[in-house]
Amino acid sequence: MSLPTDPVANLAALIRCPSVTPSEGGALVALEAMLKPLGAEVRRPVFSEPGEADVENLYARVGTKPPHLMFAGHTDVVPPGDEDAWTHPPFAAQIADGWMFGRGAVDMKGGIACFVAALARYAEQHGAPEGSVSFLITGDEEGPAVNGTEKLLAWAAAAGERWDAALVGEPTCIEALGDMIKTGRRGSLSGRITVTGRQGHVAYPHRADNPIPGLLALASALIAEPFDEGTASFQPSNLEITSIDVGNPAVNVIPGRASAAFNIRFNDRWNAETLKAEIARRLDRAADEARRRFGRAAPLAYELEWRERPSPVFLTRDEKLISALSASIEEVTGRKPELSTSGGTSDARFIKNYCPVVEFGLVGQTMHMVDERVALGDLETLTRIYLRFLEDWF
Amino acid sequence: MSLPTDPVANLAALIRCPSVTPSEGGALVALEAMLKPLGAEVRRPVFSEPGEADVENLYARVGTKPPHLMFAGHTDVVPPGDEDAWTHPPFAAQIADGWMFGRGAVDMKGGIACFVAALARYAEQHGAPEGSVSFLITGDEEGPAVNGTEKLLAWAAAAGERWDAALVGEPTCIEALGDMIKTGRRGSLSGRITVTGRQGHVAYPHRADNPIPGLLALASALIAEPFDEGTASFQPSNLEITSIDVGNPAVNVIPGRASAAFNIRFNDRWNAETLKAEIARRLDRAADEARRRFGRAAPLAYELEWRERPSPVFLTRDEKLISALSASIEEVTGRKPELSTSGGTSDARFIKNYCPVVEFGLVGQTMHMVDERVALGDLETLTRIYLRFLEDWF
Repeated sequence: MSLPTDPVANLAALIRCPSVTPSEGGALVALEAMLKPLGAEVRRPVFSEPGEADVENLYARVGTKPPHLMFAGHTDVVPPGDEDAWTHPPFAAQIADGWMFGRGAVDMKGGIACFVAALARYAEQHGAPEGSVSFLITGDEEGPAVNGTEKLLAWAAAAGERWDAALVGEPTCIEALGDMIKTGRRGSLSGRITVTGRQGHVAYPHRADNPIPGLLALASALIAEPFDEGTASFQPSNLEITSIDVGNPAVNVIPGRASAAFNIRFNDRWNAETLKAEIARRLDRAADEARRRFGRAAPLAYELEWRERPSPVFLTRDEKLISALSASIEEVTGRKPELSTSGGTSDARFIKNYCPVVEFGLVGQTMHMVDERVALGDLETLTRIYLRFLEDWF
Repeated sequence: MSLPTDPVANLAALIRCPSVTPSEGGALVALEAMLKPLGAEVRRPVFSEPGEADVENLYARVGTKPPHLMFAGHTDVVPPGDEDAWTHPPFAAQIADGWMFGRGAVDMKGGIACFVAALARYAEQHGAPEGSVSFLITGDEEGPAVNGTEKLLAWAAAAGERWDAALVGEPTCIEALGDMIKTGRRGSLSGRITVTGRQGHVAYPHRADNPIPGLLALASALIAEPFDEGTASFQPSNLEITSIDVGNPAVNVIPGRASAAFNIRFNDRWNAETLKAEIARRLDRAADEARRRFGRAAPLAYELEWRERPSPVFLTRDEKLISALSASIEEVTGRKPELSTSGGTSDARFIKNYCPVVEFGLVGQTMHMVDERVALGDLETLTRIYLRFLEDWF
């Protein structure tokens, strides 16, 4: 049985599976076929949740001994959008001018294709690693993410799996392959403020109680001052008001209710609880000021609802993991990667509860776009970086 | 032919016509039948507008000479709502405990019934007045008001009609019959502010441009300071923000656009043009401050749209008209009416372009409500006030 050492062939096989979330689309079958020749024990758990589509996942382990390295990612992709707008069909894996086109080329079937190729080359060159490598691959990263990585981790841990470190193959590079490793992520917390007044006719404002001035005061207070100036490893925390909703179509009616939604991306100066307290403090102070300013008898009454499950902030402090990866990148590309915690949340937020985790993959510029594509040269380079990392880490 | 001297009988006939806007419901036919014995020449123009229901109206004149007094009002009524919630059916004109129940009892079939009775009594006691009395009655006051008073006035004026004064029979009294005359109305002006930014992901705010902070600054600037302290005849002008609309359901997305609607009720310190200029000045100043505060290169860009056709502010200065009405009220009820310009807009805003206009009618407490009703004693008292006014004015 020939080993899957060619990342271009691996990626072509994966792109040809139209695995738009939540459809498996053949992608996990194709991945399983690549992993079997490496001696992997492959499991394919399906997870369910009321009201959500069932999702297929894959967990495969090569080797049985520690140390145990996890490679994590997803084979599901976002929809291609208008297929006619693509230069090459989104699920054809066509190659032109040194690029392979296709949905998932960089996010992140490309990362999986390279890691499989790297492990195959390791096996060819060194035999089985002195330890284990697992693939923790979900089909629910681009969707609701309820039947994916989080459940797969819990399922594997319940079966006795323990990991020493994890590498997520998401596209982390900005301009050139090797320019960025993600070593943590900001947390994310969302909430909604609602002010309830009393509806009435605009000609008789004394008989009504317009909730909008109070909401303006509260929303303004949330963005009046920065939450911090950033920390050693993180950008400043940042709050965005994402919506304000009254929905009153009648120009002669004072509305009875107004609400505003917000999201904050926060750094390691905070956790969800200290941040909630700070936000409540800002709102209470503004409500009290609004009471005095508008001459109200009672403090401005508002409701603050938190969306469930904030994403935690985390920072990976595993020097062996980070330095093995950095050194491999520098050795192969000549670039010294920036250790970054910028950007959105990722499935790494779940993995960090089990073991240290870093993220490194392709250049993300075309992800989620029409004509998503990857340079063939980058596929070879990333494979060599992953191989060098395996040699370094084991 | 007996004259319609009984306001209770007149009102019962009108209430029994279910003339919910835009339906004539028989109400103008019934009114015409009352006016014919008074020697009125009755015209029934129907007005149309694309996209709106055709509306029947009535113009009737008793006499041909000057001076010419107009009585203005409407026979259309708002819907009864849940008829089962009424103690007495809304179109039955049932009497109980000294009240007549029915939709339109006070708003404003009652006022019409009393004015007809007053004119009939005048004819019985004095013969035809030395001058003319016209009825300008629409079926489109409670609805879109596009095929009603405004067109009826233009139609009559085009036919050569000229008036010396007008009395609108809307319910103007607050607690007791005679406590308030309306001698003017505030103006009304509505607009919408829209700030356009650039949509993006909340994790990458530097790649997006959230329009909400700018909108908060603009909307706050509109309500930061009073427009005036009121004038001799008017309450202070008052601006209400009536809606804020973003409509972004995604908690991880910075929206691209945000807008706020507002309405201002303004007094005779302003007209629509000076007020538009003041609002634009406040917004421009706030936009410039927002630019500096948020460190923007360019001033905050916003669009300001005015809804068409603001309602003008007006104040009636016809001493003869006001004093004749006030004296009649005081003589009949012992109450000295407050001369007020409070409340919403009314069809008087159209009439004031043709002649001085005042508004006086029943106590409005039950208007637009379930169990709308009028005290029988108030119908008799209002009839006597209107009669006394006719005697005084002619």
